[in-house]
Amino acid sequence: WMLVEEDGIEKLQRHFTFKNFVQALDFTHRVGDLAEQEGHHPAILTEYGKVTVTWWTHKIHGLHRNDFICAAKTDALV
Amino acid sequence: WMLVEEDGIEKLQRHFTFKNFVQALDFTHRVGDLAEQEGHHPAILTEYGKVTVTWWTHKIHGLHRNDFICAAKTDALV
Repeated sequence: WMLVEEDGIEKLQRHFTFKNFVQALDFTHRVGDLAEQEGHHPAILTEYGKVTVTWWTHKIHGLHRNDFICAAKTDALV
Repeated sequence: WMLVEEDGIEKLQRHFTFKNFVQALDFTHRVGDLAEQEGHHPAILTEYGKVTVTWWTHKIHGLHRNDFICAAKTDALV
């Protein structure tokens, strides 16, 4: 995971690679299910063979402990 | 749809808004199914209550007639 800054807000971001679009979209769906379970929602960019997941906490305009936990849980979905 | 330029490549982009994350993710899935049918794959950014779809043609590093057709087909999925 990389620490990125977008519009002055610190976020956790990681790229995941896949063989094709369907596998990428399937991962997006699993991350979406995790987000619903956690009640915490990342930005998920789905492309051909690639998914970029970005976690941050909207309320505090930055990173909370929970974002790091969700990043680890995202890794477990691969 | 807006014409946007990213890294010197012209693309078609539109934001779609939804009530929540689940509805946004469901739309992402429908766009993904369309992409597979068309054999043409956009970038789909899924966020809480919002999906951003971006079409362009990788091979020609820009826009092809097919991108406009796919944009229209995306609108029909809402």
